[in-house]
Amino acid sequence: MLPEQIKKFIAVFEKLPSIGPRQATRLAFRLINSGKEKIRSIKEAVDGLDKVKLCSRCFFVHTNSGSLCSLCSDASRDNDVYMVVEKETDLISIERTGSFHGRYLIIGELTRSGALEVWQKARLTTLKNTITKNNKGKAKEIILALNPTTYGDLNASLLAKTLADYATNITRLGRGIPTGGEIEFSDIDTLSSSITRRQ
Amino acid sequence: MLPEQIKKFIAVFEKLPSIGPRQATRLAFRLINSGKEKIRSIKEAVDGLDKVKLCSRCFFVHTNSGSLCSLCSDASRDNDVYMVVEKETDLISIERTGSFHGRYLIIGELTRSGALEVWQKARLTTLKNTITKNNKGKAKEIILALNPTTYGDLNASLLAKTLADYATNITRLGRGIPTGGEIEFSDIDTLSSSITRRQ
Repeated sequence: MLPEQIKKFIAVFEKLPSIGPRQATRLAFRLINSGKEKIRSIKEAVDGLDKVKLCSRCFFVHTNSGSLCSLCSDASRDNDVYMVVEKETDLISIERTGSFHGRYLIIGELTRSGALEVWQKARLTTLKNTITKNNKGKAKEIILALNPTTYGDLNASLLAKTLADYATNITRLGRGIPTGGEIEFSDIDTLSSSITRRQ
Repeated sequence: MLPEQIKKFIAVFEKLPSIGPRQATRLAFRLINSGKEKIRSIKEAVDGLDKVKLCSRCFFVHTNSGSLCSLCSDASRDNDVYMVVEKETDLISIERTGSFHGRYLIIGELTRSGALEVWQKARLTTLKNTITKNNKGKAKEIILALNPTTYGDLNASLLAKTLADYATNITRLGRGIPTGGEIEFSDIDTLSSSITRRQ
Protein backbone atom coordinates (compact mmCIF):
# COMPACT_ATOMS: atom_id res chain seq x y z
CA MET A 1 0.00 0.00 0.00
CA LEU A 2 2.93 2.35 0.66
CA PRO A 3 5.28 3.40 -2.15
CA GLU A 4 8.61 1.54 -2.15
CA GLN A 5 10.46 4.79 -1.48
CA ILE A 6 8.60 5.28 1.81
CA LYS A 7 9.15 1.66 2.85
CA LYS A 8 12.86 2.05 2.14
CA PHE A 9 13.01 5.35 4.08
CA ILE A 10 11.33 3.69 7.07
CA ALA A 11 13.63 0.65 6.86
CA VAL A 12 16.72 2.89 6.95
CA PHE A 13 15.53 5.43 9.53
CA GLU A 14 13.93 3.02 12.01
CA LYS A 15 17.39 1.57 12.66
CA LEU A 16 18.84 4.91 13.77
CA PRO A 17 19.32 5.51 17.50
CA SER A 18 16.04 6.25 19.33
CA ILE A 19 14.02 6.32 16.11
CA GLY A 20 11.60 3.40 15.88
CA PRO A 21 9.28 2.31 13.07
CA ARG A 22 6.46 4.64 14.19
CA GLN A 23 8.68 7.71 14.31
CA ALA A 24 10.31 6.81 10.98
CA THR A 25 6.85 6.51 9.39
CA ARG A 26 5.71 9.86 10.76
CA LEU A 27 8.96 11.43 9.63
CA ALA A 28 8.50 10.14 6.07
CA PHE A 29 5.00 11.59 5.78
CA ARG A 30 6.05 14.85 7.40
CA LEU A 31 8.90 15.29 4.95
CA ILE A 32 6.78 14.48 1.91
CA ASN A 33 4.19 17.00 3.07
CA SER A 34 6.88 19.61 3.73
CA GLY A 35 7.82 19.66 0.07
CA LYS A 36 10.88 19.24 -2.11
CA GLU A 37 12.77 22.18 -0.58
CA LYS A 38 12.72 20.57 2.88
CA ILE A 39 13.72 17.19 1.46
CA ARG A 40 16.66 18.86 -0.30
CA SER A 41 17.83 20.58 2.92
CA ILE A 42 17.77 17.22 4.75
CA LYS A 43 19.72 15.60 1.94
CA GLU A 44 22.33 18.34 2.03
CA ALA A 45 22.61 18.11 5.82
CA VAL A 46 23.28 14.36 5.58
CA ASP A 47 25.66 14.95 2.69
CA GLY A 48 27.69 17.38 4.81
CA LEU A 49 28.47 14.65 7.33
CA ASP A 50 30.34 12.84 4.56
CA LYS A 51 33.03 15.52 4.83
CA VAL A 52 33.56 15.13 8.58
CA LYS A 53 36.56 13.03 9.60
CA LEU A 54 37.47 11.25 12.82
CA CYS A 55 40.73 12.27 14.48
CA SER A 56 43.32 9.52 14.08
CA ARG A 57 44.47 10.03 17.68
CA CYS A 58 41.42 10.77 19.88
CA PHE A 59 38.61 9.93 17.41
CA PHE A 60 36.76 13.23 17.88
CA VAL A 61 35.25 14.84 14.77
CA HIS A 62 37.07 17.42 12.65
CA THR A 63 37.34 18.84 9.15
CA ASN A 64 41.02 19.77 9.23
CA SER A 65 43.23 18.97 6.25
CA GLY A 66 45.46 16.69 8.33
CA SER A 67 44.43 13.63 10.30
CA LEU A 68 44.29 15.33 13.73
CA CYS A 69 41.39 17.23 15.32
CA SER A 70 41.76 20.76 16.66
CA LEU A 71 42.21 19.48 20.21
CA CYS A 72 44.98 17.03 19.34
CA SER A 73 46.79 19.57 17.16
CA ASP A 74 46.58 22.30 19.83
CA ALA A 75 50.20 22.54 21.06
CA SER A 76 49.18 24.50 24.18
CA ARG A 77 47.35 21.56 25.72
CA ASP A 78 48.88 19.37 28.41
CA ASN A 79 50.50 16.20 27.03
CA ASP A 80 50.80 14.49 30.42
CA VAL A 81 47.14 13.87 31.18
CA TYR A 82 44.71 11.82 29.11
CA MET A 83 40.98 11.50 29.59
CA VAL A 84 39.01 8.53 28.29
CA VAL A 85 35.36 9.40 27.54
CA GLU A 86 32.68 7.25 25.97
CA LYS A 87 30.98 9.75 23.70
CA GLU A 88 31.68 12.92 21.71
CA THR A 89 28.96 14.65 23.74
CA ASP A 90 30.82 13.75 26.95
CA LEU A 91 33.96 15.39 25.53
CA ILE A 92 31.94 18.51 24.61
CA SER A 93 30.52 18.72 28.17
CA ILE A 94 34.00 18.37 29.67
CA GLU A 95 35.44 21.03 27.31
CA ARG A 96 32.62 23.38 28.27
CA THR A 97 33.82 23.35 31.90
CA GLY A 98 37.23 24.73 30.88
CA SER A 99 38.68 22.65 33.75
CA PHE A 100 40.56 20.09 31.67
CA HIS A 101 43.49 20.92 29.40
CA GLY A 102 44.89 17.48 28.55
CA ARG A 103 44.29 15.03 25.73
CA TYR A 104 41.31 12.78 25.05
CA LEU A 105 40.41 9.35 23.81
CA ILE A 106 36.83 8.64 22.75
CA ILE A 107 36.42 4.92 23.42
CA GLY A 108 32.81 4.69 22.18
CA GLU A 109 29.77 3.52 24.14
CA LEU A 110 30.67 0.62 26.37
CA THR A 111 28.52 -2.45 26.81
CA ARG A 112 27.06 -3.69 30.05
CA SER A 113 29.13 -6.84 29.87
CA GLY A 114 32.39 -4.92 29.95
CA ALA A 115 33.49 -6.59 26.69
CA LEU A 116 35.12 -4.29 24.14
CA GLU A 117 34.35 -4.28 20.41
CA VAL A 118 37.24 -4.85 18.02
CA TRP A 119 37.31 -1.16 17.02
CA GLN A 120 37.31 -0.13 20.70
CA LYS A 121 40.33 -2.31 21.33
CA ALA A 122 41.99 -0.64 18.34
CA ARG A 123 41.30 2.77 19.89
CA LEU A 124 42.90 1.68 23.17
CA THR A 125 45.92 0.53 21.19
CA THR A 126 46.07 3.98 19.58
CA LEU A 127 46.11 5.57 23.05
CA LYS A 128 48.87 3.21 24.19
CA ASN A 129 50.90 4.04 21.07
CA THR A 130 50.43 7.77 21.67
CA ILE A 131 51.63 7.39 25.27
CA THR A 132 54.57 5.27 24.12
CA LYS A 133 55.55 7.97 21.64
CA ASN A 134 54.75 11.18 23.60
CA ASN A 135 55.24 10.10 27.20
CA LYS A 136 57.95 7.45 26.95
CA GLY A 137 55.35 4.80 27.69
CA LYS A 138 54.00 6.29 30.90
CA ALA A 139 51.72 9.34 31.19
CA LYS A 140 51.29 11.22 34.46
CA GLU A 141 47.57 10.47 34.61
CA ILE A 142 44.73 8.82 32.78
CA ILE A 143 41.26 9.97 33.86
CA LEU A 144 38.55 7.41 33.14
CA ALA A 145 35.57 9.75 32.72
CA LEU A 146 32.84 7.10 32.62
CA ASN A 147 29.43 7.58 34.18
CA PRO A 148 29.35 6.76 37.92
CA THR A 149 26.94 3.86 37.42
CA THR A 150 27.29 0.14 38.09
CA TYR A 151 28.25 -0.46 34.45
CA GLY A 152 30.51 2.55 34.36
CA ASP A 153 32.29 1.22 37.46
CA LEU A 154 32.70 -2.22 35.91
CA ASN A 155 34.03 -0.83 32.64
CA ALA A 156 36.33 1.60 34.43
CA SER A 157 37.91 -1.17 36.49
CA LEU A 158 38.48 -3.25 33.33
CA LEU A 159 40.00 -0.26 31.49
CA ALA A 160 42.13 0.56 34.52
CA LYS A 161 43.61 -2.95 34.33
CA THR A 162 44.37 -2.65 30.60
CA LEU A 163 45.96 0.77 31.01
CA ALA A 164 47.72 0.14 34.33
CA ASP A 165 51.24 0.21 32.82
CA TYR A 166 50.60 3.39 30.83
CA ALA A 167 50.06 5.96 33.60
CA THR A 168 51.39 6.72 37.06
CA ASN A 169 47.86 7.52 38.23
CA ILE A 170 44.58 6.21 36.90
CA THR A 171 41.69 8.25 38.26
CA ARG A 172 37.95 8.78 37.82
CA LEU A 173 35.77 11.87 38.08
CA GLY A 174 34.97 12.95 41.64
CA ARG A 175 31.66 11.90 43.13
CA GLY A 176 29.61 13.92 45.52
CA ILE A 177 26.52 16.04 45.93
CA PRO A 178 25.82 17.92 42.68
CA THR A 179 25.75 21.73 42.91
CA GLY A 180 22.23 22.72 43.91
CA GLY A 181 21.56 19.25 45.34
CA GLU A 182 20.30 18.59 48.85
CA ILE A 183 21.92 16.43 51.52
CA GLU A 184 18.54 15.14 52.67
CA PHE A 185 17.72 13.72 49.25
CA SER A 186 21.17 12.39 48.32
CA ASP A 187 21.47 8.63 48.06
CA ILE A 188 23.75 6.82 50.51
CA ASP A 189 26.58 6.18 48.00
CA THR A 190 26.70 9.82 46.90
CA LEU A 191 26.62 11.13 50.47
CA SER A 192 29.26 8.64 51.53
CA SER A 193 31.51 9.75 48.64
CA SER A 194 30.97 13.39 49.52
CA ILE A 195 32.27 12.71 53.03
CA THR A 196 35.28 10.62 51.92
CA ARG A 197 36.20 13.14 49.24
CA ARG A 198 35.38 16.24 51.27
CA GLN A 199 37.06 19.37 49.95
CA MET B 1 34.18 23.51 18.51
CA LEU B 2 31.95 21.40 16.23
CA PRO B 3 32.48 21.37 12.45
CA GLU B 4 29.97 23.53 10.53
CA GLN B 5 28.59 20.42 8.81
CA ILE B 6 27.55 18.93 12.14
CA LYS B 7 26.03 22.21 13.32
CA LYS B 8 24.03 22.40 10.11
CA PHE B 9 22.91 18.78 10.44
CA ILE B 10 21.72 19.43 13.99
CA ALA B 11 19.95 22.66 12.96
CA VAL B 12 18.03 20.82 10.24
CA PHE B 13 17.28 17.61 12.14
CA GLU B 14 16.32 19.13 15.49
CA LYS B 15 13.31 20.73 13.78
CA LEU B 16 11.90 17.39 12.62
CA PRO B 17 8.94 15.93 14.54
CA SER B 18 9.96 14.42 17.90
CA ILE B 19 13.68 14.94 17.27
CA GLY B 20 15.17 17.53 19.61
CA PRO B 21 18.68 19.04 19.72
CA ARG B 22 20.04 16.21 21.87
CA GLN B 23 18.76 13.46 19.60
CA ALA B 24 19.95 15.34 16.49
CA THR B 25 23.42 15.64 18.01
CA ARG B 26 23.60 11.96 18.90
CA LEU B 27 22.34 11.09 15.42
CA ALA B 28 25.08 13.17 13.78
CA PHE B 29 27.85 11.46 15.74
CA ARG B 30 26.33 8.03 15.23
CA LEU B 31 26.16 8.54 11.46
CA ILE B 32 29.73 9.85 11.23
CA ASN B 33 30.94 6.85 13.22
CA SER B 34 28.91 4.47 11.05
CA GLY B 35 30.89 5.45 8.00
CA LYS B 36 30.32 6.72 4.49
CA GLU B 37 28.24 3.73 3.37
CA LYS B 38 25.62 4.40 6.05
CA ILE B 39 25.57 8.11 5.26
CA ARG B 40 25.02 7.26 1.60
CA SER B 41 22.09 4.94 2.41
CA ILE B 42 20.46 7.70 4.48
CA LYS B 43 20.95 10.17 1.66
CA GLU B 44 19.41 7.79 -0.85
CA ALA B 45 16.48 7.11 1.45
CA VAL B 46 15.76 10.84 1.75
CA ASP B 47 16.28 11.27 -1.97
CA GLY B 48 13.64 8.62 -2.68
CA LEU B 49 10.98 10.71 -0.92
CA ASP B 50 11.50 13.33 -3.59
CA LYS B 51 9.75 11.01 -6.04
CA VAL B 52 6.65 10.50 -3.90
CA LYS B 53 3.62 12.59 -4.85
CA LEU B 54 0.48 13.58 -2.96
CA CYS B 55 -2.84 12.54 -4.50
CA SER B 56 -4.64 15.58 -5.92
CA ARG B 57 -7.95 14.30 -4.55
CA CYS B 58 -7.36 12.69 -1.11
CA PHE B 59 -3.74 13.82 -0.48
CA PHE B 60 -2.45 10.33 0.32
CA VAL B 61 0.98 9.41 -1.02
CA HIS B 62 1.56 7.65 -4.35
CA THR B 63 4.04 7.20 -7.19
CA ASN B 64 1.55 6.67 -10.02
CA SER B 65 2.09 8.43 -13.31
CA GLY B 66 -1.18 10.35 -13.00
CA SER B 67 -2.23 12.69 -10.19
CA LEU B 68 -4.40 10.17 -8.31
CA CYS B 69 -3.34 7.64 -5.67
CA SER B 70 -4.17 3.93 -5.96
CA LEU B 71 -7.19 4.30 -3.65
CA CYS B 72 -8.71 7.19 -5.58
CA SER B 73 -8.11 5.52 -8.93
CA ASP B 74 -9.60 2.19 -7.75
CA ALA B 75 -12.93 2.05 -9.61
CA SER B 76 -14.25 -0.74 -7.36
CA ARG B 77 -14.44 1.51 -4.30
CA ASP B 78 -17.67 3.08 -3.11
CA ASN B 79 -18.12 6.67 -4.34
CA ASP B 80 -20.97 7.49 -1.96
CA VAL B 81 -19.06 7.50 1.33
CA TYR B 82 -16.13 9.73 2.25
CA MET B 83 -13.95 9.50 5.32
CA VAL B 84 -11.99 12.47 6.65
CA VAL B 85 -8.85 11.44 8.55
CA GLU B 86 -6.11 13.58 10.02
CA LYS B 87 -3.02 11.57 9.13
CA GLU B 88 -1.75 9.09 6.54
CA THR B 89 -1.15 6.62 9.37
CA ASP B 90 -4.84 6.89 10.35
CA LEU B 91 -5.78 6.01 6.77
CA ILE B 92 -3.40 3.04 6.84
CA SER B 93 -4.94 1.78 10.11
CA ILE B 94 -8.46 2.11 8.66
CA GLU B 95 -7.47 0.32 5.44
CA ARG B 96 -5.95 -2.49 7.47
CA THR B 97 -9.38 -3.27 8.98
CA GLY B 98 -10.83 -3.94 5.52
CA SER B 99 -14.12 -2.52 6.86
CA PHE B 100 -14.21 0.67 4.81
CA HIS B 101 -14.50 0.77 1.04
CA GLY B 102 -15.23 4.44 0.36
CA ARG B 103 -13.07 7.44 -0.43
CA TYR B 104 -10.77 9.46 1.82
CA LEU B 105 -9.64 12.98 2.53
CA ILE B 106 -6.51 13.53 4.58
CA ILE B 107 -7.11 16.88 6.25
CA GLY B 108 -3.75 17.03 8.09
CA GLU B 109 -3.21 17.31 11.84
CA LEU B 110 -5.76 19.65 13.37
CA THR B 111 -4.91 22.27 15.98
CA ARG B 112 -6.37 22.48 19.44
CA SER B 113 -8.01 25.78 18.61
CA GLY B 114 -10.08 24.26 15.84
CA ALA B 115 -8.69 26.81 13.36
CA LEU B 116 -7.73 25.42 9.94
CA GLU B 117 -4.53 26.26 8.08
CA VAL B 118 -4.86 27.72 4.59
CA TRP B 119 -3.80 24.43 2.98
CA GLN B 120 -6.31 22.52 5.11
CA LYS B 121 -9.09 24.79 3.90
CA ALA B 122 -7.90 24.11 0.34
CA ARG B 123 -8.16 20.36 1.01
CA LEU B 124 -11.73 20.76 2.26
CA THR B 125 -12.52 22.70 -0.94
CA THR B 126 -11.08 19.80 -2.94
CA LEU B 127 -13.43 17.41 -1.11
CA LYS B 128 -16.40 19.70 -1.76
CA ASN B 129 -15.47 19.90 -5.46
CA THR B 130 -15.17 16.11 -5.66
CA ILE B 131 -18.62 15.71 -4.09
CA THR B 132 -20.04 18.36 -6.43
CA LYS B 133 -18.64 16.49 -9.40
CA ASN B 134 -19.14 12.85 -8.37
CA ASN B 135 -22.20 13.03 -6.13
CA LYS B 136 -24.17 15.92 -7.56
CA GLY B 137 -23.21 18.02 -4.56
CA LYS B 138 -24.39 15.61 -1.85
CA ALA B 139 -22.71 12.36 -0.80
CA LYS B 140 -24.54 9.69 1.15
CA GLU B 141 -22.21 9.96 4.11
CA ILE B 142 -19.11 11.70 5.37
CA ILE B 143 -17.39 9.95 8.29
CA LEU B 144 -15.28 12.30 10.40
CA ALA B 145 -12.67 9.82 11.68
CA LEU B 146 -11.01 12.08 14.23
CA ASN B 147 -9.76 10.84 17.60
CA PRO B 148 -12.48 10.70 20.27
CA THR B 149 -10.77 13.35 22.40
CA THR B 150 -11.90 16.80 23.51
CA TYR B 151 -10.00 18.41 20.63
CA GLY B 152 -11.18 15.77 18.17
CA ASP B 153 -14.76 16.48 19.25
CA LEU B 154 -14.29 20.22 18.81
CA ASN B 155 -12.70 19.84 15.39
CA ALA B 156 -15.31 17.30 14.29
CA SER B 157 -18.18 19.62 15.19
CA LEU B 158 -16.54 22.48 13.25
CA LEU B 159 -15.92 20.24 10.21
CA ALA B 160 -19.48 18.92 10.44
CA LYS B 161 -20.76 22.49 10.14
CA THR B 162 -18.56 23.24 7.11
CA LEU B 163 -19.55 20.01 5.36
CA ALA B 164 -23.23 19.98 6.41
CA ASP B 165 -24.55 20.66 2.90
CA TYR B 166 -22.33 18.05 1.27
CA ALA B 167 -23.68 14.83 2.80
CA THR B 168 -26.99 13.37 3.90
CA ASN B 169 -25.32 11.92 6.99
CA ILE B 170 -22.25 13.15 8.82
CA THR B 171 -21.03 10.53 11.26
CA ARG B 172 -18.06 9.72 13.51
CA LEU B 173 -16.42 6.45 14.47
CA GLY B 174 -18.32 4.42 17.08
CA ARG B 175 -17.23 4.69 20.69
CA GLY B 176 -17.33 1.88 23.18
CA ILE B 177 -15.29 -0.58 25.16
CA PRO B 178 -12.26 -1.66 23.10
CA THR B 179 -11.97 -5.37 22.35
CA GLY B 180 -10.19 -6.97 25.28
CA GLY B 181 -11.13 -4.07 27.57
CA GLU B 182 -12.88 -4.44 30.90
CA ILE B 183 -16.16 -2.85 32.00
CA GLU B 184 -14.81 -2.24 35.51
CA PHE B 185 -11.94 -0.11 34.24
CA SER B 186 -13.77 1.78 31.47
CA ASP B 187 -14.23 5.49 32.01
CA ILE B 188 -17.76 6.85 32.39
CA ASP B 189 -17.93 8.39 28.88
CA THR B 190 -16.81 5.19 27.18
CA LEU B 191 -19.17 3.03 29.22
CA SER B 192 -22.04 5.43 28.62
CA SER B 193 -21.35 5.32 24.86
CA SER B 194 -21.21 1.53 24.91
CA ILE B 195 -24.72 1.45 26.44
CA THR B 196 -26.19 4.04 24.05
CA ARG B 197 -24.61 2.38 21.05
CA ARG B 198 -25.17 -1.21 22.18
CA GLN B 199 -25.05 -3.70 19.33
